[in-house]
Order: sequence, then C-alpha cells, then structure tokens
Amino acid sequence: MKKTVFTLAAVAAVIGTVAVAQDYSANLKARQGQFRILALNIGILGGMAQGKIAYDAEAAQRAADSMVAVTHIDPGPLWPEGSDNMSIDGTRAMPSIWDENADFLAKWGALGEAAAGMQQVAATGQEALGPAMGKLGGACKACHDKHRAPE
Amino acid sequence: MKKTVFTLAAVAAVIGTVAVAQDYSANLKARQGQFRILALNIGILGGMAQGKIAYDAEAAQRAADSMVAVTHIDPGPLWPEGSDNMSIDGTRAMPSIWDENADFLAKWGALGEAAAGMQQVAATGQEALGPAMGKLGGACKACHDKHRAPE
Repeated sequence: MKKTVFTLAAVAAVIGTVAVAQDYSANLKARQGQFRILALNIGILGGMAQGKIAYDAEAAQRAADSMVAVTHIDPGPLWPEGSDNMSIDGTRAMPSIWDENADFLAKWGALGEAAAGMQQVAATGQEALGPAMGKLGGACKACHDKHRAPE
Repeated sequence: MKKTVFTLAAVAAVIGTVAVAQDYSANLKARQGQFRILALNIGILGGMAQGKIAYDAEAAQRAADSMVAVTHIDPGPLWPEGSDNMSIDGTRAMPSIWDENADFLAKWGALGEAAAGMQQVAATGQEALGPAMGKLGGACKACHDKHRAPE
C-alpha cells in the first residue's frame, strides 16, 4: 500500500516537473489574428500615405477606427503565461513579454496612443497620414525589437 | 509582327477568362482571428455564466469590452469580394455574404448590439451573464445559419 502511494507521488512529481503540453492554439490564433487586422488597416493607410492607393477620407477614417478598436482588446486572454516561443511552437513571442510584462503592456499602450493619433487626423487629408504612420510604425517596431523573436 | 500581337491578345484573353487565383490569405487570417478573439472572450463569459469559472466582475467587464471592440472593426477590408467558399479554399464564408450584403451587415450590427448589451451588465453580477450570453449566442447563430457553410 505504501509502495502504491509512493508510486503515485513519484508520478505526480514527474508530471509536475515535465512541462505538460497545454494547447494554446486558440490564444495564438486570436493574438496573431489581431495583428493581421492591424496589418490590413496599416496597409490601407500606408498605401494612401504613399500615394499607391487613392486617398479616401472615409476609408482612411474607418481603417484608423478599426486599428483603435483592436488596441481596445484586452491583451490578457490572448497572452497566457506559457505561450512564449521557448515553451511552444508557432509563435515568436519572447519570454520577455511575461518577464517584463509592464514594459510589454506599456508598449501595447503606446500602440493605442499612436492609433488614436491616426484616428484624429486620418480624415483631414492625405498629407496627415505620413507623420501618423511614422508614429504607428515606431510603436510596432519598439515592441517587435524587444519582444518578438526574428523569423 | 501581326502574329505576335495576336498571340499576346490571345494570352490576355486566357488570363481574363481563367480566374486568377488572388491571395486572400491575409484577409482570411484577419477575419478568422477576429472570431477567435470573440470566442476566447465568449469562453470567459460563458464559463462564468455556467459557474465553471469563478465570477470576477473586472474580468467579465474586460471580456465584454473586448467583444465590443471587435464589433467596432470595419468588416470591409476583412471580407473582400471573391473570398467566399465557392471561390477559394480555407473559408466557410458563403457567397450570400456578398449577394445579400445588407443582411450580412445587419447581422454583424446585431452582434454589436448584443455585445453592447453584455458590456452594460457584465460587471453587475454573475446572474446577469446568462441572459446576455443568450442574446450573444443568438446573434452568432443567426449569421452562421445563413452565411456560414457547414464544416
């Protein structure tokens, strides 16, 4: 009887120390989808800023509004601890996102501010898009440089 | 020389009649990611409504706010014409989305209203979640029944 208890305890210890492969695919698809939505709308605004897409004030406003909407999504459920690129496949999210979470959240907040800045000016004219895009690109890059692994 | 011109015209005619496989993967990933974000947050609110997750007013509010944020994303760039399940692989989006676009957009709007309803009550208590979840589920189902192909 004692041996059985010991064996169960040993199994429990092994389960505890070996990382159990939890399924984070739903979280990954959600957060990667979020960046896809941002990218689609950045593509519209960037295309207009560069003159590759005809400037359309209403379409620019909708794209900026969509980006702001994405920045209002709570990052918590999308970024569960353990879903970093050292623990699972299919992500470039570095452990620093959780190890330096305040920095990550500050950078997410900075993206929100840059998107809000674009929202303010998107419908005011094509020439306003470039500077606002620069701030958006800077916010993206700051987080990617620090918290995203190279491909 | 005339023969060359004819040949080029013939090639152009072939290109024009054979459907050119346009790459909608970025659009698909964005719109499917959008539903993944909704699903994650519905999971939180549904789990609390059913008592499977401990009710937490702040977490419930954040989940509801996130759903409302998603419903503020402009559907236009996510649903380009030609990205239906009769035209491309990897989607269950039926042609009716474009053929009856006003109906599709009304159903998207109804989801926005249901999410706003959840946002109003999510922090008021666990017992408020069930009825609000029912309306959300109804909005999801109405669109899926009409515009999403079975798996």
